[in-house]
Amino acid sequence: SSSEAPSQGKRGADEKARESKDILVTSEDGITKITFNRPTKKNAISFQMYRDIILALKNASTDNTVMAVFTGTGDYYCSGNDLTNFTSATGGIEEAASNGAVLLRDFVNSFIDFPKPLVAVVNGPAVGISVTLLGLFDAVFASDRATFHTPFSQLGQSPEACSSYTFPKMMGSAKAAEMLLFGKKLTAREAWAQGLVTEVFPESTFETEVWTRLKTYAKLPPNAMRISKELIRKNEKEKLYAVNAEECTTLQARWLSEECMNAIMSFVSRKPKL
Amino acid sequence: SSSEAPSQGKRGADEKARESKDILVTSEDGITKITFNRPTKKNAISFQMYRDIILALKNASTDNTVMAVFTGTGDYYCSGNDLTNFTSATGGIEEAASNGAVLLRDFVNSFIDFPKPLVAVVNGPAVGISVTLLGLFDAVFASDRATFHTPFSQLGQSPEACSSYTFPKMMGSAKAAEMLLFGKKLTAREAWAQGLVTEVFPESTFETEVWTRLKTYAKLPPNAMRISKELIRKNEKEKLYAVNAEECTTLQARWLSEECMNAIMSFVSRKPKL
Amino acid sequence: SSSEAPSQGKRGADEKARESKDILVTSEDGITKITFNRPTKKNAISFQMYRDIILALKNASTDNTVMAVFTGTGDYYCSGNDLTNFTSATGGIEEAASNGAVLLRDFVNSFIDFPKPLVAVVNGPAVGISVTLLGLFDAVFASDRATFHTPFSQLGQSPEACSSYTFPKMMGSAKAAEMLLFGKKLTAREAWAQGLVTEVFPESTFETEVWTRLKTYAKLPPNAMRISKELIRKNEKEKLYAVNAEECTTLQARWLSEECMNAIMSFVSRKPKL
Repeated sequence: SSSEAPSQGKRGADEKARESKDILVTSEDGITKITFNRPTKKNAISFQMYRDIILALKNASTDNTVMAVFTGTGDYYCSGNDLTNFTSATGGIEEAASNGAVLLRDFVNSFIDFPKPLVAVVNGPAVGISVTLLGLFDAVFASDRATFHTPFSQLGQSPEACSSYTFPKMMGSAKAAEMLLFGKKLTAREAWAQGLVTEVFPESTFETEVWTRLKTYAKLPPNAMRISKELIRKNEKEKLYAVNAEECTTLQARWLSEECMNAIMSFVSRKPKL
Repeated sequence: SSSEAPSQGKRGADEKARESKDILVTSEDGITKITFNRPTKKNAISFQMYRDIILALKNASTDNTVMAVFTGTGDYYCSGNDLTNFTSATGGIEEAASNGAVLLRDFVNSFIDFPKPLVAVVNGPAVGISVTLLGLFDAVFASDRATFHTPFSQLGQSPEACSSYTFPKMMGSAKAAEMLLFGKKLTAREAWAQGLVTEVFPESTFETEVWTRLKTYAKLPPNAMRISKELIRKNEKEKLYAVNAEECTTLQARWLSEECMNAIMSFVSRKPKL
Repeated sequence: SSSEAPSQGKRGADEKARESKDILVTSEDGITKITFNRPTKKNAISFQMYRDIILALKNASTDNTVMAVFTGTGDYYCSGNDLTNFTSATGGIEEAASNGAVLLRDFVNSFIDFPKPLVAVVNGPAVGISVTLLGLFDAVFASDRATFHTPFSQLGQSPEACSSYTFPKMMGSAKAAEMLLFGKKLTAREAWAQGLVTEVFPESTFETEVWTRLKTYAKLPPNAMRISKELIRKNEKEKLYAVNAEECTTLQARWLSEECMNAIMSFVSRKPKL
């Protein structure tokens, strides 16, 4: 679809989002639900979807939203960055890498800055940036169908979304490196044992149990939650900005490397089996 | 009892502690045992008890104590801050909040500064500040009867005792937030899985097993233990002071907020069921 | 053997290593394998072995090695620092402590600086510095025969290899202190639960399973792995250097303390039963 086009000229962050069905945003009972809604592409994130999410988080920051919740439509939670963001770039790979790095940095900063509770409802496999971002969430509820996979080395790339900092902090270097350097795919249970997932639910009762709980949480005093989150975040906000910037710079160089180009070309030209 | 009175004029930290039965301090075999001993109030901590603990830790820092151990009398370990510290304040809520913030800061600093091994023997439910403080302990042994509950948001409050820093560091943000933002009550087993508890024992053998082990530990070379603890603490002591100060300032403002006042009034006027 | 002699005059780091059978270095399929090979002494590390490892890591940093892997010959992975490094010192204990602290600092820095994936294949009991170093590894695979023991207090000593920083960061203070202050010996399973071990394998299939996996990992794009590791390490490299320096200074003073001398003399004169 046209929403996959890698570059559409500059768009002010305050510009009203164009209608896009690839990211759905709905609000009810104080909960703003942001849904990866591109099931035919396993919910891979196009450049336009990055922009839609930035805008959705910006709006939810200031409106009467109590809590923001991410989930996915269909079998996948999210298969990560859409690799055709690069291969379909019209301005050449260097420009695409540069634009991609700026967009990625803004995108991750919008998670660092989000001032209210942020929850992931991981309904199925999660890949790449949809996994690394979880280190910036306040709760991660996973179906036992979910898996967690960050095959950066396999694709000649490097970690993003502050995972080079949040993952070792959370799980220790020996477990973080297995994911971030060696691309080990984790089951929901393994991800729970490593602190990435708050709680795992059987697929059969997943949606019911999680949403019941979230509706209860959304009724707690909103200022208390916001202020407590601010206290927690304040301890490392500057560090997170710096890590994000460093990761994006590194990734921009990676995208132009032969290792990465070969891996992406090989990936795009085959039937994806992440 | 009179020890619950929220304010008794200034008391120098070096003043000899008045006899208080709400905190018991005993010493044997190099172990100074500090007991929450107010079972009729589920060992809730009055302003006087905060002062008694500060003094007990100060004394144990410099006398021949090898190790300090906290535990509780009766069913509870400790039900946290006594909320009547505020409602019974004679000088008005603003003065109580201000005094409370100063006292809390000194209290938490006395744990940050304690130079010898510090152990919690959690005999039953732990609530609020008795849970958050555990992030500053060197070992936490829990009965399988123990639970760990920090209902800050429910009470319109915010985390203290450096937990906004120690909990995310220890368990990752997705598990820390479930406790600190959403007030999830953990079983001893869950607290163990998240790093808050060193080991869980069956209630039937809890006291015997734990005290046998502690007596063994207390016979280790005391200087080696003190110096090793100093090495560990030095890595983040300045950070802990800063986090403590920030948390107390935040909490002082929280105590004066409508959310908090409503929650406390509602809590105090009902039969407590934490 | 002569390789245990504590001081052999200054050796430049770029000097070609003398043949030593106590550390074996082999390379195959991009993997440089560094083996503690002194089974008659449970693979205890002599001063010469420290120097051999520094050199091996230096070489593997710049040659075509993709990944470095440590393991041990025989029943033990490594029983830690050879305590006769001190008792057999010819220049007196003060000189031995001073030389030891400099050597230890260089040794640990060579792990902090190693730019490629670093893996431990823990085939059996690991003691002291062979355990604390694991906090600087990218993956730790353990046989279910392995144990993890840091009896620093028992020996009047203090933590090294940045463990005063990496262990609390990885497992929380309540679990780190049980190892570092109280010298609790962990099973492989316990070490896994605390983040120190990436995965535990049954002894019967340990070698086969681990080496199959490592050979797969060693085929991943090497630049991607190196750059991802650099990103992770950059977040705390200065901190690690500072912690290492502080630990070595502390340990140098410890080695000269009565507590430590008594503990070492008592240890050396008895049949070792770590």
